[in-house]
Parts: sequence; structure tokens; C-alpha cells
Amino acid sequence: MLNPQIANYIGLAAGGLTTASYIPQVLRILRQRSAKDISVWMFLALVTGLLLWAVYGVLIHSFPVIITNIISLLLAAAVIVLKKKYG
Amino acid sequence: MLNPQIANYIGLAAGGLTTASYIPQVLRILRQRSAKDISVWMFLALVTGLLLWAVYGVLIHSFPVIITNIISLLLAAAVIVLKKKYG
Repeated sequence: MLNPQIANYIGLAAGGLTTASYIPQVLRILRQRSAKDISVWMFLALVTGLLLWAVYGVLIHSFPVIITNIISLLLAAAVIVLKKKYG
Repeated sequence: MLNPQIANYIGLAAGGLTTASYIPQVLRILRQRSAKDISVWMFLALVTGLLLWAVYGVLIHSFPVIITNIISLLLAAAVIVLKKKYG
């Protein structure tokens, strides 16, 4: 790797974006009080996959992979809870 | 790392799940002909973030990170196109 510091910055920016992406979706469901068009299967697969990504991050010692996937997992789980509530 | 092979398997399983997660969402929009409850900001942030994850994968030489994020990016982009079409 040419510059591990640059890789870490890009990883953190990537993780920041993919993690933050769930926030407008959570807010939209809360505002519209509707999650009809949301696929619960998407978010169930996501939560399972994000948990495995966090484990992978531990195994390859990648801090951006670990922290961003744990936060993403919590937000994706929130979408599932809201889907159950608003249908 | 204790066993790089195990880490790769977990990374591929993680990537398989998070990538495949977009498929039921794409199918649901096509079936319902509606994407009203989908946040376009979620998927715009996702596409940008997934692109950066792929770059990060190149920098840390992680094949699971590269391939799964490129496929995810294409599926997330499909959700944006369908959102534009069905609103």
C-alpha cells in the first residue's frame, strides 16, 4: 500500500456516507408514518450482513470497517422496527 | 491475523448478504410500481459511499470489499432509477 493514512481517510469517508445514508430513510419513515414501499427482507439481510462485515473488520484489523458497520447495523435495525410499527 | 482464509470467507459472506439485500428492494418497487416511502437521499449517499468503499478495497487489497461494493453500487443505482420512474 502506498499510503495507509490515505486509505484510512477514504475508508472513513466511505463508512461515514454509507452509515449516514440510513438517517434520511429513518427520518422519512417517521415523517410519512409509512414504510409500505420498504422491503423488510432488504433490511433483514442488511443487518445480518453488516454484523458479518463488523466481524470481518475485526479479523483484518480495519477500524473503519468495524465502527461504521456497527453504527449502520443499529440504524438498519431501526428501519426494521419502524417498518413493523408503520407497515 | 490467525487465519486469513477464514477472514476472506466471512468477508465474502458479509458482502454477499449486504449486496443481495438490494435485490428484494428492487423487486418490491417493480411489483408495487411505487417507491414513495424510499428516501432518494439514502440511495444517493449509498452510491457515493459504496464507490469510496470500492476505492478503499483497492487500497487495502481486499477482494471482498472491492467486488461486493461494485455490485451493491449498481443495485443501489437501480433503486434511484426506479424511484425516479415510480416516484
